[in-house]
Amino acid sequence: MATAAMLLLLFLTAVAVGCSAWEMNIRDWTAVARPWWRPIIHALRPILGSGRQLAARAGVACDSWRLGVEAHNVIAWKTVPAKCEDYVGHYMLGGHYRRDSVVVVDEAIAYAESLKLAGNSKEIWVFDIDETSLSNLPYYAKHGFGATLYNETSFREYVAEGSASALPETRRLYRRLLELGVKPVFLTGRTEDQRTITITNLQQQGFSRWEKLLLKPSVHATGELQGSAIEYKSGERQKLQDAGFIIVGNIGDQWSDILGAPEGTRIFKLPDPMYYIG
Amino acid sequence: MATAAMLLLLFLTAVAVGCSAWEMNIRDWTAVARPWWRPIIHALRPILGSGRQLAARAGVACDSWRLGVEAHNVIAWKTVPAKCEDYVGHYMLGGHYRRDSVVVVDEAIAYAESLKLAGNSKEIWVFDIDETSLSNLPYYAKHGFGATLYNETSFREYVAEGSASALPETRRLYRRLLELGVKPVFLTGRTEDQRTITITNLQQQGFSRWEKLLLKPSVHATGELQGSAIEYKSGERQKLQDAGFIIVGNIGDQWSDILGAPEGTRIFKLPDPMYYIG
Repeated sequence: MATAAMLLLLFLTAVAVGCSAWEMNIRDWTAVARPWWRPIIHALRPILGSGRQLAARAGVACDSWRLGVEAHNVIAWKTVPAKCEDYVGHYMLGGHYRRDSVVVVDEAIAYAESLKLAGNSKEIWVFDIDETSLSNLPYYAKHGFGATLYNETSFREYVAEGSASALPETRRLYRRLLELGVKPVFLTGRTEDQRTITITNLQQQGFSRWEKLLLKPSVHATGELQGSAIEYKSGERQKLQDAGFIIVGNIGDQWSDILGAPEGTRIFKLPDPMYYIG
Repeated sequence: MATAAMLLLLFLTAVAVGCSAWEMNIRDWTAVARPWWRPIIHALRPILGSGRQLAARAGVACDSWRLGVEAHNVIAWKTVPAKCEDYVGHYMLGGHYRRDSVVVVDEAIAYAESLKLAGNSKEIWVFDIDETSLSNLPYYAKHGFGATLYNETSFREYVAEGSASALPETRRLYRRLLELGVKPVFLTGRTEDQRTITITNLQQQGFSRWEKLLLKPSVHATGELQGSAIEYKSGERQKLQDAGFIIVGNIGDQWSDILGAPEGTRIFKLPDPMYYIG
């Protein structure tokens, strides 16, 4: 009887997995023609867990690829593997991305609260902006969640809208740091010509105060992401340190946001399986 | 009709999830009294994916905790969170751990193959031993997969058996490096008094050649893992470099295996959600 029950269970599970049930379909983010059997990208968590079954059926261990990215083993990639587009979409739009971010920010807040702060206005926390403070998910949802090659022109058009939402977990950290007397510094790969819209967008999303907002010098069309982000950002952190600031924390979604001396007393890596900046 | 079908599907899925079906139960690794509804630890992959549903039901985002560990956000922890013992057990014994390791080693081999090697016998790759070259999973399976506090005495007894298995992915990397002419160096937190059994175990598991096998000086009972592993290991790497070796790669399961100058040209972090060494 146990065997019969097991077989029935296996059958039901197979049916459930095979049919790709979702809790709810909110909106067809991708706006791409799709066959009837393919689930549309949804805004809630798939019952069976972040689309991993889909990835497994496609023969790609997308969750392992994502772990490889987050642990800095998989580097210098240009696009999300084609077969992982759905997986990354589900990850980003479902509860998984948020849940992973909660753990990072809980750690960061616990760390910040454990510090013996001097309260001398020199203690700062460095925040990256894109995919750290502000989320460009609506843009990437329209561009394959990183499965299509980065297009600077269209991305800059999107940034110019100033419509990006705050990452709620990062905003929670930001607010707690202000309470603790640690001053935020934004350090971004965005360029000076984007300063005004960036300020507007940050303020609208609840990031209203900062010690500094550091943007890269404006460049012509294609230069924005050229050169090493590590060199640029660590150079800016060195200037902050030389000016007497103490970098007690440093958070970003790219390893290039946070690696490179001086890193700060402790670094935090937020998840981002959509793009890689070296 | 679509709605009715969806409801049926949701019901079937709920049944399947609620009953915790497994492909096969091999052996009760944990040997702990358990209620009838709780699945025993199994040696094959759970159909619904690495026990995440279990973790979610227990109100702990164990997969997010694990990601936090792997991305070096969650540090200095003493034990796996109690509610994640099952999750970690499923992760380690199922296909998930292996699948994650495959991605790391694929990256490492691709990197090694891309190197322009001088072939001067000075190019080395540093391997950690425990949970990198040899797996102590049978020991940890009996000790809560890291959910119980580390016990040096019983772990040393286990090591003295010399029964640890090779991690197959790491052995794949090891063999490819030998083919490429890169010499392996083992650098471990194991102590000199464990040298003989370590050599026997490594050789029995297919790790038969190395440039050096570096163990820590023997200490009395409780000293083995005291002090900073980062300082010890980076100090040993410095000596290697001073002796003219070029560390082209460096792989470990702990960040303390691989961080700290000189790190080597590139570092690789294998998964390990069972313990933390700082």
